[in-house]
Amino acid sequence: MAEHVVVIGAVALGPKAACRFKRIRQDAKVTLIDRDDIFSYGGCGIPYYVSGDVSESSQLRTTAYHMVRDEPFFKDIKGVDVMSMTEATKIDRENKKVHIKDLRTGNESVLDYDQLVIGTGAKPRKLGLPGEDLEGVYYVGNMHDAETIKDGITKGTIGKAVVVGAGFIGLEMAEAFADMWGIETTVVEIAPQILPRMVSPVLAKMAQNHMEEQDVSFRLGQTVTRIEGDGKVQRVVTPEETIEADIVIISAGVVPNDKVARDCGLECSERGGIMVDETMRTSDPAIFSGGDCAIIKNLIDGSPLFLPMGSMANRQGRVIGSNLAGRKETFPGAAGSFCVKLFEKAAAGVGMSLAGARQAGFDALSVMLIMADRAHFYPTKDMMVLEMVVDRDSRRVLGVQGISGNGDALVGRVNAVAALMKYKPTVEDVSNLEVAYSPPYAAAMDILNAVANMADNALSDMNRGHGPDTFVEYWNNRESEEVCFLDVREEADAEPLLEKHPEHWHNIPQGEIPKRFEELPKDKPLVLICNTGARSFEAQVMLDALGFKDVRNTQGGMAVLKAYASDF
Amino acid sequence: MAEHVVVIGAVALGPKAACRFKRIRQDAKVTLIDRDDIFSYGGCGIPYYVSGDVSESSQLRTTAYHMVRDEPFFKDIKGVDVMSMTEATKIDRENKKVHIKDLRTGNESVLDYDQLVIGTGAKPRKLGLPGEDLEGVYYVGNMHDAETIKDGITKGTIGKAVVVGAGFIGLEMAEAFADMWGIETTVVEIAPQILPRMVSPVLAKMAQNHMEEQDVSFRLGQTVTRIEGDGKVQRVVTPEETIEADIVIISAGVVPNDKVARDCGLECSERGGIMVDETMRTSDPAIFSGGDCAIIKNLIDGSPLFLPMGSMANRQGRVIGSNLAGRKETFPGAAGSFCVKLFEKAAAGVGMSLAGARQAGFDALSVMLIMADRAHFYPTKDMMVLEMVVDRDSRRVLGVQGISGNGDALVGRVNAVAALMKYKPTVEDVSNLEVAYSPPYAAAMDILNAVANMADNALSDMNRGHGPDTFVEYWNNRESEEVCFLDVREEADAEPLLEKHPEHWHNIPQGEIPKRFEELPKDKPLVLICNTGARSFEAQVMLDALGFKDVRNTQGGMAVLKAYASDF
Repeated sequence: MAEHVVVIGAVALGPKAACRFKRIRQDAKVTLIDRDDIFSYGGCGIPYYVSGDVSESSQLRTTAYHMVRDEPFFKDIKGVDVMSMTEATKIDRENKKVHIKDLRTGNESVLDYDQLVIGTGAKPRKLGLPGEDLEGVYYVGNMHDAETIKDGITKGTIGKAVVVGAGFIGLEMAEAFADMWGIETTVVEIAPQILPRMVSPVLAKMAQNHMEEQDVSFRLGQTVTRIEGDGKVQRVVTPEETIEADIVIISAGVVPNDKVARDCGLECSERGGIMVDETMRTSDPAIFSGGDCAIIKNLIDGSPLFLPMGSMANRQGRVIGSNLAGRKETFPGAAGSFCVKLFEKAAAGVGMSLAGARQAGFDALSVMLIMADRAHFYPTKDMMVLEMVVDRDSRRVLGVQGISGNGDALVGRVNAVAALMKYKPTVEDVSNLEVAYSPPYAAAMDILNAVANMADNALSDMNRGHGPDTFVEYWNNRESEEVCFLDVREEADAEPLLEKHPEHWHNIPQGEIPKRFEELPKDKPLVLICNTGARSFEAQVMLDALGFKDVRNTQGGMAVLKAYASDF
Repeated sequence: MAEHVVVIGAVALGPKAACRFKRIRQDAKVTLIDRDDIFSYGGCGIPYYVSGDVSESSQLRTTAYHMVRDEPFFKDIKGVDVMSMTEATKIDRENKKVHIKDLRTGNESVLDYDQLVIGTGAKPRKLGLPGEDLEGVYYVGNMHDAETIKDGITKGTIGKAVVVGAGFIGLEMAEAFADMWGIETTVVEIAPQILPRMVSPVLAKMAQNHMEEQDVSFRLGQTVTRIEGDGKVQRVVTPEETIEADIVIISAGVVPNDKVARDCGLECSERGGIMVDETMRTSDPAIFSGGDCAIIKNLIDGSPLFLPMGSMANRQGRVIGSNLAGRKETFPGAAGSFCVKLFEKAAAGVGMSLAGARQAGFDALSVMLIMADRAHFYPTKDMMVLEMVVDRDSRRVLGVQGISGNGDALVGRVNAVAALMKYKPTVEDVSNLEVAYSPPYAAAMDILNAVANMADNALSDMNRGHGPDTFVEYWNNRESEEVCFLDVREEADAEPLLEKHPEHWHNIPQGEIPKRFEELPKDKPLVLICNTGARSFEAQVMLDALGFKDVRNTQGGMAVLKAYASDF
């Protein structure tokens, strides 16, 4: 009899594993089961379907050549049998059987397997809030949710939306509401910043400012305590305020669907998720798992990593498909690369943010650079902000995060660092990373090389700086005159601020420092600033050599300061 | 006395090394000498100055904060002394002296050095053609050439241009002429393809077709034998034809300026260029070199590499600056990443092309994939073509090259592979490369992962295919009926070709193959084609399993075929 592979879960990982295996082993039988009648869809596309960028929900489940990935597609094109609306209720590992239940009829039956794949994915984390079940409160869990939300919007009855959670999906949904449908949108986030854990508070604030310019409101550091309404949602309540809402989207993360695995004794994480090795095998070598229900290895520090992303699922699915067929492929882990479109900007990153690195026990520092994404003389360009997180002792690059108006350019830099991560790169590896050069696409010393050079200078204590957050603290405290603010740009650039703050703003252009340094106080810290941080760094080096004992330059300069604090 | 570092050559590498060293060692004295009075300019920007994208030549020598990098700039801002119009005529290594000559006055003198940097760059390769000295014949060697060319164009007397050499600069100059000034432009190249050695003949043809659509003409495989004119250039003559020209640009590569190094006995390559180690030291440990006059290590096979690019010079310059100050930094080599804008398309790559890999002794194969650069359901996207070159035995990735309408997206993928190159990545490393995923920026299984998967399938002989060039050969020979052409798309897609070529074009949609395979001949090769190669690959696997002995799929499908051969 032909070998039988059963795959539980038919979104992303499951179909990939099934089809890859079947392609190698045309003689084998593959059964793909799913609880839903809509499967093999691109869940990450849901915000774009809600926004209207993707006009039909079916587009999220068609191939690039416009065939819907339904049961006949899998049968005819892929040679894979699909049982939809079918739940795997129990795995009998000893006898290699999966107990299944037809959710249409309630009929129960049993499938024998030779090898099994668990690709049950994840479900939205429920907050257990009073009022969570009101009409108009949604989780973005599957295509049915997506269609209900879209139906509600297109009826035109939604004027106000509240999104709970400022992670990727929450922000993408906020953009969908505000950008395409002009809905008054408020994002409530329990953390004090958007994209918590993904980027630094400074980058988060810059992204938030941009979204606010596009009319999205934010309530940070607020916890939703209940949702109110008369049958239908009307208000979201936090300890601080009550926000009106015709629709509420709760996007507070996801929880791995590991119950069927846990019940049959497969090793799972205490915090949820099925443990797998580098071959994507569970603790039972006849059972593979991956995607949103599995725990893989964090390439930065070897810790367990839950990284529910369609890209992970697809790549792991292929490894599983190959290994089902007897090959010896590995998925060594991930460093957590991400990107997200926020109106006209992109945020992207890989590895650890500064806070994450410190939490993981690294003695980490970060530097932030703003620079054009091309040769500065090239006429069309965007400014890119990159923050690099490094370990002081080992000089390892632990992460890079950034924001730019040119998403492709930013993501390209992030991908180059992501490619390095499993080799535990040092700052020097990125300083010399071979970014392809031509003026329309990069600078000769590209921003990616330059941010590593900056980290190198910070590690050697040659570049001693702070970000715009610290600058704002100093500035807000300017009346104390504890520090001296020195603008090292040319006089014409400094003039507006000199006129506005004659008592606190000082200016000596960098090139005049050797002649004019005696104008500066020696008894208090000097806080330097220029346009982007390049000249304030050079000025700091000059002043160090001239014997000034406490000189600090403002990384990112006025350019980052303006994006961070809109009142500058 | 302060340590004295002398740097010969003040473009790219020299200024970088000088300023980096001076920043670390504020107490030292640094002298930067250059033969020219215009220095520290971005030479790679010359085509954009000629095109008018960059309006003033001075923009190529200003900083991002609009200061011209002239003598006072280096003195005041960088603390570096510049001696322009000064030639280093001789290096006396024993006594650590550089003999110099003031080209304005003819005065000769001597500089003592403690450490020396040779950054003399490269000069255009002269072809020694009759007529080369006619007015209107230019090499793109420095800013003076650039200004003369631009002056000529803006006078409006140039109607026809001939560019000799279809490398990066030649093509960029051709675009500058044709795009911005509407000049009738012809590129003559001795090799049978554009971008020789950089990309495969198939990618080259696709790029050429695009440039031809923008009214650039090409004469490939032609050697210029002489240039004719009456004082001023009028014609370029090849054995095949005579091409009228009001201006001729010769861009036939560059030759390292290594004479001063060679004369003082520093180790140089037989083929030109100063040999350096990983610390960028020459055979004399007190003398560093890098940039366009130096030979570094090819990270693919360890061979000597001459890679004259501004990006190399800048990164190496920083390493030299650090090492001059006693640090121990290295520049391990390069894999030859590149990118070039060709009107609305970009071409980019890293490592070896298929021909290059075979010439270097690898038993290499390549695969070619065409795919959207984002989730295929995302509304705005460009198609990207990637070719991956791999070594059969080791499964190493030797190179990746591509073309796309979205240069940033393409360059980002190339940079990710470039980052890996020094680790000698295998196909699996790129299959699982952690491309950041979100529908607006990548596919869940990104084209970069997918092209590696394709290479994996080709290495295991599971994907047996050919490119559009071979398909065209088969097709041109279709009357012989030696092969059977099978279009495996849905009937509606195949219909136009079925109607046009009823005797040679056959169609069985991939999903119908299990039912209809008996319609196919078993006695001759089957040549499969679909839109992009995805279904023809799957169909090939199906037909293999059904017992067909010689099934070949067309990589890139109709999409690449149309870009390659415009008559399809």
